[in-house]
Amino acid sequence: MKKAVVLFSGGLDSTTCLAIALSEGYDCHALSFDYNQRHAIELNAAKAITTRLHVTHKILPIPNLGASSLTDENIAVPKHTQNLKIPNTYVPGRNTIFLSFAMAYAEVIDAEAIFIGVSAVDYSGYPDCRPEYIEAFQKLANLATKRGIEHHPLEIKTPLIKLSKAETIQRGHALGIDYTYTVSCYQANQQGEACGQCDSCFLRKKGFSDANLHDETRYITHHD
Amino acid sequence: MKKAVVLFSGGLDSTTCLAIALSEGYDCHALSFDYNQRHAIELNAAKAITTRLHVTHKILPIPNLGASSLTDENIAVPKHTQNLKIPNTYVPGRNTIFLSFAMAYAEVIDAEAIFIGVSAVDYSGYPDCRPEYIEAFQKLANLATKRGIEHHPLEIKTPLIKLSKAETIQRGHALGIDYTYTVSCYQANQQGEACGQCDSCFLRKKGFSDANLHDETRYITHHD
Repeated sequence: MKKAVVLFSGGLDSTTCLAIALSEGYDCHALSFDYNQRHAIELNAAKAITTRLHVTHKILPIPNLGASSLTDENIAVPKHTQNLKIPNTYVPGRNTIFLSFAMAYAEVIDAEAIFIGVSAVDYSGYPDCRPEYIEAFQKLANLATKRGIEHHPLEIKTPLIKLSKAETIQRGHALGIDYTYTVSCYQANQQGEACGQCDSCFLRKKGFSDANLHDETRYITHHD
Repeated sequence: MKKAVVLFSGGLDSTTCLAIALSEGYDCHALSFDYNQRHAIELNAAKAITTRLHVTHKILPIPNLGASSLTDENIAVPKHTQNLKIPNTYVPGRNTIFLSFAMAYAEVIDAEAIFIGVSAVDYSGYPDCRPEYIEAFQKLANLATKRGIEHHPLEIKTPLIKLSKAETIQRGHALGIDYTYTVSCYQANQQGEACGQCDSCFLRKKGFSDANLHDETRYITHHD
């Protein structure tokens, strides 16, 4: 059975990505990271979802280098704006670090693909979510691995890259996903309930709305 | 003062690389990794060398994914052979993981360069030491970082890439490096003394010999 490593945060995108990888017949090995993220509750969601789907799941603890509101409690998570600059929720090097470990793990278990749920449509403006970035990582993986040298390159698969959030949700629904217990919010509380105000909540809310669907997100009832 | 992150294991190559970066006027931030390597004693060497050179030094603990004789005590480190296959000392994804963290750290401290002491001449046949691999990482870094987007790309510098081990040692000597307390051996003992038989020892020994220099390595006096 063909194997895949699936980068898996327990959020809406990576849960859809995992469902797609399973639907394509991959033996999936989900990989999450504990990087001292503010919303570490997402790891509980990740664990619960992979348990329900009977998918192997590994959580790797990695060092946090700071300089992001997602990992430094002294920097506030901003509300969503239309500002086109890279927001302070950007974690330097995050996708490169995640993909590097996924690549190493793929070599160890001899997986032939890595799935990552990046989208170039509804995203927060991070440089490492763009198609050209993924293409560059694919070229790197071709050169960095035994598989690449042996001309059976490890494939970096991005099934959501051209999908809007609404389309991602529709795709997930078609695959039987209920998003209620996925956590996307950058500052979810201990119950995994969402703030409804950050960039990630904005995009998720807009996705359900654009798709004319009931928003399955659990929001914090009382907040400032 | 221009800043650089220097990937630094405490071995012969990375010590030379650090000396070169310092000689080029960089404010150097050395970065080492604790990945459960068999020769973790190299981290003591790294600490001692950076202390002596008054260089900022950070050791990041990262998860070990196994599948290498360098990180799995149940796999023996082989003696050097002329076999052209990738040896079992190869750690999947290692340089990509190291460079990813170096890139993240560079973004956090706003460094303009990363130094890595890879050589394409005297090396162990690892895929992630080749010039084409480094070029691919450079392209990735251009796309993955704020600096890249702002057209001030982070530069991946490999001053040893075209040097033989002998030339590296000569370069280091010219910069005042004494290699006695650097550790290259894959299975150095607790005193940092070298086995003299592994691939890394072979290349280092050959380097001193080719350069017609006294071998500064401290070897284990009694071994099997």
